[in-house]
Amino acid sequence: MAATPSSEAVAGLERFLAIPSVSVDPAHRGDMRRAAEWVADQLAFAGGRVVETDGHPAVVGEWLDAPGAPTILVYGHYDVQPPGDETEWETPPFEPSIRDGRIYARGATDDKGPVVVALQTAKTLLADEGALPLNVRFLIEGEEEIGSPSLPAFLEQQRDALGCDLVVSADGAMWRPTEPSVAVAAKGLLALDLVVEGPRTDLHSGRHGGAVQNPNHALARIVASLHRDDGTVAVDGFYDDVEALGDADREALSRVPFEDETYRSEVGVGALHGEPGFTTLERLWTRPTLEVNELRGGGPFTVIPRVARAHVTSRLVPGQRPERVLAAIEAHVTRFAPPGVEVRVESHPGAVPAYAIAADHPAVEAAANALRAVYADQEPLLVRIGGTLPAAALFERILGVKTLLFSFSTADEALHAPNEFFRLHRLAEGIAAWTELWRLLARDRPAA
Amino acid sequence: MAATPSSEAVAGLERFLAIPSVSVDPAHRGDMRRAAEWVADQLAFAGGRVVETDGHPAVVGEWLDAPGAPTILVYGHYDVQPPGDETEWETPPFEPSIRDGRIYARGATDDKGPVVVALQTAKTLLADEGALPLNVRFLIEGEEEIGSPSLPAFLEQQRDALGCDLVVSADGAMWRPTEPSVAVAAKGLLALDLVVEGPRTDLHSGRHGGAVQNPNHALARIVASLHRDDGTVAVDGFYDDVEALGDADREALSRVPFEDETYRSEVGVGALHGEPGFTTLERLWTRPTLEVNELRGGGPFTVIPRVARAHVTSRLVPGQRPERVLAAIEAHVTRFAPPGVEVRVESHPGAVPAYAIAADHPAVEAAANALRAVYADQEPLLVRIGGTLPAAALFERILGVKTLLFSFSTADEALHAPNEFFRLHRLAEGIAAWTELWRLLARDRPAA
Repeated sequence: MAATPSSEAVAGLERFLAIPSVSVDPAHRGDMRRAAEWVADQLAFAGGRVVETDGHPAVVGEWLDAPGAPTILVYGHYDVQPPGDETEWETPPFEPSIRDGRIYARGATDDKGPVVVALQTAKTLLADEGALPLNVRFLIEGEEEIGSPSLPAFLEQQRDALGCDLVVSADGAMWRPTEPSVAVAAKGLLALDLVVEGPRTDLHSGRHGGAVQNPNHALARIVASLHRDDGTVAVDGFYDDVEALGDADREALSRVPFEDETYRSEVGVGALHGEPGFTTLERLWTRPTLEVNELRGGGPFTVIPRVARAHVTSRLVPGQRPERVLAAIEAHVTRFAPPGVEVRVESHPGAVPAYAIAADHPAVEAAANALRAVYADQEPLLVRIGGTLPAAALFERILGVKTLLFSFSTADEALHAPNEFFRLHRLAEGIAAWTELWRLLARDRPAA
Repeated sequence: MAATPSSEAVAGLERFLAIPSVSVDPAHRGDMRRAAEWVADQLAFAGGRVVETDGHPAVVGEWLDAPGAPTILVYGHYDVQPPGDETEWETPPFEPSIRDGRIYARGATDDKGPVVVALQTAKTLLADEGALPLNVRFLIEGEEEIGSPSLPAFLEQQRDALGCDLVVSADGAMWRPTEPSVAVAAKGLLALDLVVEGPRTDLHSGRHGGAVQNPNHALARIVASLHRDDGTVAVDGFYDDVEALGDADREALSRVPFEDETYRSEVGVGALHGEPGFTTLERLWTRPTLEVNELRGGGPFTVIPRVARAHVTSRLVPGQRPERVLAAIEAHVTRFAPPGVEVRVESHPGAVPAYAIAADHPAVEAAANALRAVYADQEPLLVRIGGTLPAAALFERILGVKTLLFSFSTADEALHAPNEFFRLHRLAEGIAAWTELWRLLARDRPAA
């Protein structure tokens, strides 16, 4: 379909994107509140309000005038990743720029564009029809990009006020721009730092080189030990609890069109790399990973640094428990720590297991049908995402409900990278699909 | 001896140290010029002047009113290392602080304190006696901490104006505070960056983890491959040209008192580490090293970085040629580069070979006698330094003269580290020793 987004939706998104709501950076505390207030203002029809948590505030609201109809909780987040090196952005990250039908800004696709889809769905329905087809609560949080540390306690406190039959998440992503898809699984996340401490103070590398273990060398040895040459994780026990991929899963995956060469070219590497015995798509969607996101030690001068650090994240799949994987990594690091330095693992709070929803869950069926209504000529695919949606695991544990991932973000839109963007046609398509989804959910009354 | 530095010398040093003359940082260009002008002002008695080079300016001057006497060139530098993490400093790096007979500031011992020793020697002699015992030229440069890139061309241009029989360097260091010493060798220096490039842009480590080679992982593998577990450099050919340590050298080294346990405790590590088959002192003074000064890639968030880098320096010993060592490292890196990334070696300009002066050179004898005069109860030791004095190799090649390293810095004074300091009693001791050295050189007329 040739969808044209409403100028109101685009203007609103531009205002939202201009607020640098970087949750990880304390300097943006005021911007975080401004972004929350902007969302609350959009939710005026639902009594939208900014509420305190132990960290950044959340925004909630509810429209409950559909007696007898099911209740859903719409989830999204208003915080964004840091922009990284701003010189790599073609236009400044917090000055939204529309080029070729795309809007470029930090947070455009993760998650402000998709949040605007959800907000506009409600506003358009109310404007056109005076009512929503079902009861809708809203929870737009401000800590997704830092692992939602305050969300568990908040959900416990607000359990009654957030009661629902299903969560519909505006976070997540379509896997490709050309193929409508519903995500049925997201990986879990475990984050930690490896810290290697050597001499009491930074040493002159000329005067002391050759006599002490250099923490940079020690860190490199430990990091190098984490993977085998073929890309397999070399940590004993890392794969122990991974649920084997069933034939049906492999078969469903095989229906998803994926060309290694196209993917290789898109990410811009000379060759793909990873665990033998699995297709690239299986690795991306169904295999746990261990990635060193940051190496940091010393400086570009003649120093043997006192300390060297690595920031490491592991993406978990169903069956893996964060605490067991952490213990395996700790044991590995202890075993591979070279002499002459002290090595420790600092785990970060907020680790979450993987999340999955059954392919035959009524909400997944409704989502597929909503996509069929909007993308008439294309059969929706059931896909998985390599990213993590900590909230989905929390909603299941604390609220006792499943989460339907129904985002109109697309996985190629430079999430967490320079020049993040959102396709503007997704705004109109998203609003149409969310409208249809709500109607179908109201009609079908899916069980929790 | 109980030496009390003159208040004039201390006050001058404080003013000098308050100027943040960080040569590597373009933001300090103005401070570099202020520091040069301060030195030129101190050299008013010698027509001191700031002269341009291809980089930061140098300061020169000359006092040539001792006809028939030899001519020396006093060398030092007014630039300093960056302060590093300022939170690790007990007092701010550019606000000199005197505590317990020490002056703390970036550059206190490397090389501003020792430069003040040389300047005050001349000023004190002229004030007390109206003349110097020999002809003295001065060259205080501003690029030592960045490898003296402009010095070769400057020496070529100024060859006649800098003509001398001997260079006396205020740069270098006594090896210990309690034992007077003359350094007879300094290691060479080769600096390079290892650059690992992976995907076209930073990637989300959840969405892309497991499918591409992570540049941080690749860099760690390469860095880990540079050394064996025992600390030996694993680069083929790295040790090829190293001149074997003769029995006499080993015997001289064995006379130098050195306790591994004391050293280990000083640097604050659990165990020393390095090449088997050599004592710690032999490793520090006579063995080439390869140290990774910086690891840098990605950030503390969920990213697979586009690029990861290591800054690497190698300290060379007599016999090794920088270009041969560089070629060996390049070949090694090519061999160990993992698939899926592009790896390159970026060598830095200004590599220098090691420098050595014979233990029986007349200038070394004069230096030892000057130390005997000041430190009456202690026999000076002949030592080597693991650091590099690029200028010494250049003076030999371009001016055709040897350099006597006669610094009153001490190797334990936190060079290149937080809380760098200089022992104030070295000011008076240094001035007394330099005065005696000049008298002895004038009397003995050492050959070039």
